[in-house]
Amino acid sequence: MTAAPVYLIGGGPGAYDLITLRGLRALERAQVILVDNLGPGKELAKLISLENKEIIDCAKIPYGKQVSQQKIMQIMLEKSQQGLIVARLKGGDPFIFGRGYEELVFLRSHNIAVEVIPGLTSPVAVSTLAQIPLTHRGLVHNFTVVSGHLAPEDPQNLTNFSALAKLNSTIVLIMAVKNAAKIAQKLITEGLDPKTACQIIEHGSQPQERRFKTALSGLGELIAAEKVLAPAIIIIGKVADIA
Amino acid sequence: MTAAPVYLIGGGPGAYDLITLRGLRALERAQVILVDNLGPGKELAKLISLENKEIIDCAKIPYGKQVSQQKIMQIMLEKSQQGLIVARLKGGDPFIFGRGYEELVFLRSHNIAVEVIPGLTSPVAVSTLAQIPLTHRGLVHNFTVVSGHLAPEDPQNLTNFSALAKLNSTIVLIMAVKNAAKIAQKLITEGLDPKTACQIIEHGSQPQERRFKTALSGLGELIAAEKVLAPAIIIIGKVADIA
Repeated sequence: MTAAPVYLIGGGPGAYDLITLRGLRALERAQVILVDNLGPGKELAKLISLENKEIIDCAKIPYGKQVSQQKIMQIMLEKSQQGLIVARLKGGDPFIFGRGYEELVFLRSHNIAVEVIPGLTSPVAVSTLAQIPLTHRGLVHNFTVVSGHLAPEDPQNLTNFSALAKLNSTIVLIMAVKNAAKIAQKLITEGLDPKTACQIIEHGSQPQERRFKTALSGLGELIAAEKVLAPAIIIIGKVADIA
Repeated sequence: MTAAPVYLIGGGPGAYDLITLRGLRALERAQVILVDNLGPGKELAKLISLENKEIIDCAKIPYGKQVSQQKIMQIMLEKSQQGLIVARLKGGDPFIFGRGYEELVFLRSHNIAVEVIPGLTSPVAVSTLAQIPLTHRGLVHNFTVVSGHLAPEDPQNLTNFSALAKLNSTIVLIMAVKNAAKIAQKLITEGLDPKTACQIIEHGSQPQERRFKTALSGLGELIAAEKVLAPAIIIIGKVADIA
């Protein structure tokens, strides 16, 4: 039995119709689909007929029970080696903080052909849906997407927050709900104006979306008071003020 | 006559099937479509039937003849005020260096309802298609998308390149073909290792795509020798070395 190719598909921020046409076509061809709780996995039936397809829920809920990454990769490999067309539908873009590259490297090492189909990455797409431009002429000429998974003082955190504070960037924090207060404090200590505007978008593109606006100095307090939940993005910079 | 809503649609990096389903549905509903040379404008007939639709080519070729931004906005306004459903199909994401926000502000000021539909932004999508991850566990925890439209020493350039060199980021330069040599030199002067890996992807997602790899110190020379053309993205950082 020849191994079939595996599709790594970015599903976008959540709403089912924010997947690309190319991603949709790959889902239609697939015989086995591995879905996450992020992205359009829950609304799969709105996209394709599920008849004669095996759907595997990887249920990677943050801070909840997890099917381990290793097991997910093993399933993709085994199904592909059985000659089945496998699609791995991920939230956002497969290569932006999504561990997609690990999956690619693993499958390649077993001589499985992989096609990677990009998806709308949440830090950009959720901002655009909220009509906040991450760049704007005369205001800011770059934007930075930063993982807030680790606290700034964590020795494993690879981002230089001192440089970040001085970059004159639109900063978009993702996976940062828990550490937002520490990150805001660190950016202020390193020179970013405490009055810098922030917007928080929780569950962007979903019916339960919530949106908040504050100054950088009040970010931690607002997140605690409003009990903001993941997934959320936090936009910091002048664009958060104008929009 | 009541003004109809205007759709600002991100078409993605170029290939027609990299638009979102939501974007496609809006194109189907539209009666007037304004297209760019960026994005899937040239392949519109692969996406929708053009019958009974007015297609307006804005022909914004870099360094070529331009229909002015003001005129584009005026056309959208007039068509909408005639009660026609207008779609503005842009390359990439409408709000990433795309002047989409200016169009939104203009239309809002005339009480036109605008729906913004995000698209795959080229710096991310082209990297993912090339199977280069902008982030990778243990290697880099952030990425920065930077416009290279202005030279680093230009007083109108708002990016702090000294901070950028120290951020420990994956840097993705866009609109930077002309100024890449100067930007590379500035980043090296400010402390970034001249041996830092770079990958250049010209015409990403298109049949004529070309791809090059070099060290930061050789970036300007390579672009000149290979006569790299816009649109191109330049990825600078450790991920350009592993992938």
